[in-house]
Amino acid sequence: MKHGHAGVSDIVIAYIGGGSRGWAWKLMADLALEERLGGTVRLYDVREESARANAAIGNALRGRADVRGIWRYETARTPQEALEGADVVVISILPGSFKEMASDVHAPEKYGIWQSVGDTVGPGGLMRGLRTVPLYVDFARWIQRWCPRAWVINYTNPMALCVRTLYEVFPGIKAFGCCHEVFGTQELLAAMLAEGRGIQGVAREDVKVNPLGINHFTWLGAASYRGIDLLPLFGSFAEEHHEHGFREKGQEDDCFGCAHRVAFDLFRRHGMIATGGDRHLAEFMPPYYLANPQVVAAWKFSLTPVSWRTANARELEEKGRRILAGTDPFPLEHSGEEGVRLIAALLGLGEILTNANLPNQGQVKDIPDGAVVETNALVSRDSIQPLIAGKLPPDVNALVMRHVGNQETLLRAAINRDKKLAFNAFLNEPLVQLGVRDASLLFEEMLGNIRAFLPGWDL
Amino acid sequence: MKHGHAGVSDIVIAYIGGGSRGWAWKLMADLALEERLGGTVRLYDVREESARANAAIGNALRGRADVRGIWRYETARTPQEALEGADVVVISILPGSFKEMASDVHAPEKYGIWQSVGDTVGPGGLMRGLRTVPLYVDFARWIQRWCPRAWVINYTNPMALCVRTLYEVFPGIKAFGCCHEVFGTQELLAAMLAEGRGIQGVAREDVKVNPLGINHFTWLGAASYRGIDLLPLFGSFAEEHHEHGFREKGQEDDCFGCAHRVAFDLFRRHGMIATGGDRHLAEFMPPYYLANPQVVAAWKFSLTPVSWRTANARELEEKGRRILAGTDPFPLEHSGEEGVRLIAALLGLGEILTNANLPNQGQVKDIPDGAVVETNALVSRDSIQPLIAGKLPPDVNALVMRHVGNQETLLRAAINRDKKLAFNAFLNEPLVQLGVRDASLLFEEMLGNIRAFLPGWDL
Amino acid sequence: MKHGHAGVSDIVIAYIGGGSRGWAWKLMADLALEERLGGTVRLYDVREESARANAAIGNALRGRADVRGIWRYETARTPQEALEGADVVVISILPGSFKEMASDVHAPEKYGIWQSVGDTVGPGGLMRGLRTVPLYVDFARWIQRWCPRAWVINYTNPMALCVRTLYEVFPGIKAFGCCHEVFGTQELLAAMLAEGRGIQGVAREDVKVNPLGINHFTWLGAASYRGIDLLPLFGSFAEEHHEHGFREKGQEDDCFGCAHRVAFDLFRRHGMIATGGDRHLAEFMPPYYLANPQVVAAWKFSLTPVSWRTANARELEEKGRRILAGTDPFPLEHSGEEGVRLIAALLGLGEILTNANLPNQGQVKDIPDGAVVETNALVSRDSIQPLIAGKLPPDVNALVMRHVGNQETLLRAAINRDKKLAFNAFLNEPLVQLGVRDASLLFEEMLGNIRAFLPGWDL
Amino acid sequence: MKHGHAGVSDIVIAYIGGGSRGWAWKLMADLALEERLGGTVRLYDVREESARANAAIGNALRGRADVRGIWRYETARTPQEALEGADVVVISILPGSFKEMASDVHAPEKYGIWQSVGDTVGPGGLMRGLRTVPLYVDFARWIQRWCPRAWVINYTNPMALCVRTLYEVFPGIKAFGCCHEVFGTQELLAAMLAEGRGIQGVAREDVKVNPLGINHFTWLGAASYRGIDLLPLFGSFAEEHHEHGFREKGQEDDCFGCAHRVAFDLFRRHGMIATGGDRHLAEFMPPYYLANPQVVAAWKFSLTPVSWRTANARELEEKGRRILAGTDPFPLEHSGEEGVRLIAALLGLGEILTNANLPNQGQVKDIPDGAVVETNALVSRDSIQPLIAGKLPPDVNALVMRHVGNQETLLRAAINRDKKLAFNAFLNEPLVQLGVRDASLLFEEMLGNIRAFLPGWDL
Repeated sequence: MKHGHAGVSDIVIAYIGGGSRGWAWKLMADLALEERLGGTVRLYDVREESARANAAIGNALRGRADVRGIWRYETARTPQEALEGADVVVISILPGSFKEMASDVHAPEKYGIWQSVGDTVGPGGLMRGLRTVPLYVDFARWIQRWCPRAWVINYTNPMALCVRTLYEVFPGIKAFGCCHEVFGTQELLAAMLAEGRGIQGVAREDVKVNPLGINHFTWLGAASYRGIDLLPLFGSFAEEHHEHGFREKGQEDDCFGCAHRVAFDLFRRHGMIATGGDRHLAEFMPPYYLANPQVVAAWKFSLTPVSWRTANARELEEKGRRILAGTDPFPLEHSGEEGVRLIAALLGLGEILTNANLPNQGQVKDIPDGAVVETNALVSRDSIQPLIAGKLPPDVNALVMRHVGNQETLLRAAINRDKKLAFNAFLNEPLVQLGVRDASLLFEEMLGNIRAFLPGWDL
Repeated sequence: MKHGHAGVSDIVIAYIGGGSRGWAWKLMADLALEERLGGTVRLYDVREESARANAAIGNALRGRADVRGIWRYETARTPQEALEGADVVVISILPGSFKEMASDVHAPEKYGIWQSVGDTVGPGGLMRGLRTVPLYVDFARWIQRWCPRAWVINYTNPMALCVRTLYEVFPGIKAFGCCHEVFGTQELLAAMLAEGRGIQGVAREDVKVNPLGINHFTWLGAASYRGIDLLPLFGSFAEEHHEHGFREKGQEDDCFGCAHRVAFDLFRRHGMIATGGDRHLAEFMPPYYLANPQVVAAWKFSLTPVSWRTANARELEEKGRRILAGTDPFPLEHSGEEGVRLIAALLGLGEILTNANLPNQGQVKDIPDGAVVETNALVSRDSIQPLIAGKLPPDVNALVMRHVGNQETLLRAAINRDKKLAFNAFLNEPLVQLGVRDASLLFEEMLGNIRAFLPGWDL
Repeated sequence: MKHGHAGVSDIVIAYIGGGSRGWAWKLMADLALEERLGGTVRLYDVREESARANAAIGNALRGRADVRGIWRYETARTPQEALEGADVVVISILPGSFKEMASDVHAPEKYGIWQSVGDTVGPGGLMRGLRTVPLYVDFARWIQRWCPRAWVINYTNPMALCVRTLYEVFPGIKAFGCCHEVFGTQELLAAMLAEGRGIQGVAREDVKVNPLGINHFTWLGAASYRGIDLLPLFGSFAEEHHEHGFREKGQEDDCFGCAHRVAFDLFRRHGMIATGGDRHLAEFMPPYYLANPQVVAAWKFSLTPVSWRTANARELEEKGRRILAGTDPFPLEHSGEEGVRLIAALLGLGEILTNANLPNQGQVKDIPDGAVVETNALVSRDSIQPLIAGKLPPDVNALVMRHVGNQETLLRAAINRDKKLAFNAFLNEPLVQLGVRDASLLFEEMLGNIRAFLPGWDL
Repeated sequence: MKHGHAGVSDIVIAYIGGGSRGWAWKLMADLALEERLGGTVRLYDVREESARANAAIGNALRGRADVRGIWRYETARTPQEALEGADVVVISILPGSFKEMASDVHAPEKYGIWQSVGDTVGPGGLMRGLRTVPLYVDFARWIQRWCPRAWVINYTNPMALCVRTLYEVFPGIKAFGCCHEVFGTQELLAAMLAEGRGIQGVAREDVKVNPLGINHFTWLGAASYRGIDLLPLFGSFAEEHHEHGFREKGQEDDCFGCAHRVAFDLFRRHGMIATGGDRHLAEFMPPYYLANPQVVAAWKFSLTPVSWRTANARELEEKGRRILAGTDPFPLEHSGEEGVRLIAALLGLGEILTNANLPNQGQVKDIPDGAVVETNALVSRDSIQPLIAGKLPPDVNALVMRHVGNQETLLRAAINRDKKLAFNAFLNEPLVQLGVRDASLLFEEMLGNIRAFLPGWDL
């Protein structure tokens, strides 16, 4: 890594899950558009051919006139090849395949448990967690061995558990997790300002928020735009729209969209703005919003079926082939993600205040130390510092703590391969309102479906 | 108060709820049997005639030959009369009457929610809490005004919330809560030693335990008898008896009894011994054990109907009359409670290690500071010091934290007369697995039933 | 207060100590140069005529063409007049007069104790603290009564004790303390970059630091400029200059200047950069740097005699008269202080990261909760949030903790008028290396000199 | 280890420093007098012949009629031989020899620094700490390897640093430190009761205390005998005796004795009873009591010269030979130490409340977590639980924190072989009121004297 007047060159980024087509392409685009950074990206993926394809796409970028950041892409065949001497590690993986995800999301349906995403909490998020922890145990060990001073940015879900695992295994790691869900709420608030106050064109960055909670279930302790307190404004907004919902302009009614009715309802009951998007929020609560597909429809958000993901992945694969073949251009536009700006900040190029997932060391009161929480943090040269965000009101804290408890239980269960403990977490999921016997049947079935990813378990 | 060689005389005890026939008679008996203490007991009760009857019974004791502690009983007509200059304050009240308790326990039944006790958690415990907090706000203010240095011992349920309220209003109060439920588990362990190891006659005091948790849902981090670790032993015991249950000799199959099947089940799932007795334990959990009366019967514990309490109260009232009339003797035997020994210890006569309910200041890790928790504590002259009890395993902590969250939420709701907040606590009760609409209907009905005790609420 | 597109108008600022000529003039200048803010400043001072003079000066500004922020200045005759309904409270007072300060600084000299400032720690800072606390007790009560939701910015020394007192008396206060000493170190680092690396013209804001400690004895856990870690660079810089010192260009060798030899020495011994300026730093340490005036001269910093302050005050008074008379122009230039930018930020106009003095709530580990510490904090609309700054290495923490201990001891001593306790703090001052008898004589003498400011003490 | 009705047999105790003649003989006597325990003691010492001699003495005990506990004594030639499979580990070593201790105690005298003991704090205690840490690093590793579940009782000074090191290296260790200094204060209080109140024959155990602080500088937050608060009583006692001192009956005026004038003085200044004995207490303070031998004599305590220790050791060696030869009987009487009762309690035979040195986990507020503090703790089967002792008043806490800071600094210095850091701790010792140059000369000299025990240091 070399610092110069124009920026930093010779940076080594190791990308675990480098065969991904979503996050990896976004990163490649953002890197290409950032003139102050340059170096090598080493792509590592258990599906080596995907990494190889991405490397080819990435290397092809260098020839383009509109590219300002010059990067070399390599395919790493081993973790060591990827990580040795890396300055930055990015992790975005799919733990298992869509087959396992199909079990996560859909297996519980026959017991009347519906999930809109299934990757964070709920029976699906829990199973995903159980198979993700062992992978992250490895990642943490590799990083400790080959690049202990590298910065590690995680994008994988379940976010909190991934970050928690990294710190559990290698307490000295410099890792944090990034998620754009808070951005979405900032945009909603900007839209609210346009609708309610006629203030147009507010950039999401100018909506100031104090998020606190856990990833995908983060609450705003404060929100303002210039001198305007957005909390009471949101109260009126929620009153007005809670019945029919509110959709930002241009927002599609696809299987990712929502009309914020869940967020409005949570505000009316708890007096706080919940970020995360309705699809995520609903999964953290008892089945009020997810009782069945009709209820979901009435709340105007969507279940994202895994079939959609499979189809989408196939399309992306196709698109990747076309890009490689030169038939399609690589889409060179800012992703809206902050990853590259965060890397720049960590290398000394500017400071950023962003929401980050980090072990609690006082940033959120009344949540145990060490639990991974989400708050604002200041990212600067070789440093990330959480801001002290205060504490949640007791009723909201109770909702959050239920999942914080499961975070820790799952970690222990996964590390000790303790089926009983995992089942206790399962029973503690708000969406699992089954009797013990039914819960046990479902748990066994789901665990069986992912057994290939649970080495050493006594199943 | 005077200290002499023989003990302490001229002690002033103020008894709030001094018209009670259960706790008050036990205290009177224990005081009469303790030769080292003497003085005055001032009985205060909103039902003044009950206090007056108890005073008469108490004063009659002085004439008996088998009485060793000499006490004068007075009826206090005002809180000030009771409290001014008191050395010790004992509080054991019934918040409201059996009419309100009937609502607490039975109103939810039509929604399929069954409660075995209904005084601690669950919809009933919650309502009881809401009407108890304002009373305890008054108690705390009175004590701060009239006897700020007195020791305050609470027996009323919901225990944790009562003690929490006292400290919230008067942070300098010297108060703690006492409960005998842990004793019951010590006795069960003694019975286990007799049955499994042939060790007969173990006194409950010799079963050493490290309790931690919240009242009626306290777990044993350790349990031993001499060199024997009782945890693995309890494991075998639970395996052997979980199906058919175990009843200590002489234990009646009445509406207070249980066969410990719930405790066995919890041990098999969580690897820890839960104290509190099955009737209480079941209410802290989702409706696994309380799904309906048949399920309760199968788990071999009992629902205690309020009709039983009403009848029992009438019998005690009758008995009181007979005692006063000289027809029945006052039963002068040790109650098995520790109250009087604790008072002696606080006055400098011996140290006692007992389980006590106190605001958390580090005795239980991973539970927020200030929440009232139950652990061992050392009681000595003018002092109670909790022992550092460690932390619960994450799955058990998650179960406990759910109620800790409600403790704080209820306190705020009751103090701020915040119906929304109270309803959020209601929804967070594990026994309340209703949809929001049904939950709301039940909540409104129950709240309406106790409105007389919610002054200033906007109902 | 009214928010508009152009900014905020009708702001009410109450200025306690509004007769000051240093801080008040700076604030007046900065307000005049900030076009986004406007309103009323109410000047309150025990020397009412000084407040009146400043009001006249302030009101005269409105007529100037180069003034962009329009403010009305009023003289408040009572605290209530100043504070009622205020949005912002600024406090910068001289506790007592220069007569008392002369005692603080010079009385200890005959015992061989020399002080360079005498307003923060050391025997002088301690005495100043004792007479400041009762004033701040009043301020806190006034604010609680008349403007409980106002933001309170403190500039008075001893900073930590002033802020600590405000929170002790009114825990809900929204107060923090501001100090520019960290800025000085940022400027030194910028000068170092110019000298050592040839990087000219670095703005102090672009030197990023992570300060942690207590006011005037704050240490940098990290310091960087773009990608450059300034800590090792400072190491070389200290090696090169520790013998002869280093003076920034244009820095005068007056009684405020220093050549950073103390900071260099502290770096060489502790491996950290201490901010505060040598004059302050030396007072926090045993008399290594302050053994006598020759030693001070050798370390190339200065003793600031109170005679200088008296003369300077007279000059400023004169200047005030000339300004009022129109002979001299009011100097309308940015003060370099951040106060007005902070006020703007608190009103929703931009976020600022700055160093602030606040009760510890986790921002500095291994320092007790509640002690006032200095770290970075984010100031935004109606909010200040400290950043988690980590912890000091144990040897530095030991130096800091000694004064943190005195902060708490002095607070208790001043509030309880406890002479013994105050003397224990006195003995714990590193500069006081006297035997108990001598220490006691000096203590009594100094206390006697300020007795007029110790109402209710038994002296 | 076997538990039976009569007690526990086949216990394996590993004794590190088993060649000692002080602590080892006391333990051997106490074990011989305790009928409920039996097994093997493995003596390990770097001076193997001393261990061998003690083994012979110990084995000879079995033949005596008055011996009730039957133990076999073995000499272990390696740590592994001693520790493998041990149930209990006792550590009481002399780190280095009297030659090093002579340097610790006497080298500073030429700089006017006098020390009464020189084994805990002060320049001597610090040097002793530096050479003890590496030994304890080894002990912790050995225990982790060969008997990770054994209970470890430490008697070596500097106590706090020894225990701190064990937990630093092996966080899962079950270790604590025992010291009888608090007992001495209990005896003084008993003597006070006899003198002032005519209450004769109070056993030290019946004087109830709440100690908190650090070893040899522990303060009593409360002290009582039955209903009597001993704090005000001690106030009068201190007033009466502070000038001429007070000696318990039978207490010799030898080089260990004291007349409690230092404790009286500390009480008069801080309002708390300091335990530790004047010889220890004086070393934690600035040189008020240790200015020179005349001052020490005036305060009526003693400097313990190392020559006394050398002579005493020779006598004990002689005595050992005579015991072995059968000329002298082994003195079979209770030592007054609690070690054997603690071992019994850990094995399930009774619970004991005693003062213990343990990492802070909340037992003392306002002292950082992890620092080894001394408070009461409950010792029971396989468990030690500290009691929450509260916090020290700020002036006393400041005195204690200064040494807590040095505890951590020394640990880091010793582990990292960091001379600069060690020197910073040296300068922070209250007894070291030297200029930096003199301090440095003394530090270098003393460090040179113990260089044989500082492997790997760059000296």
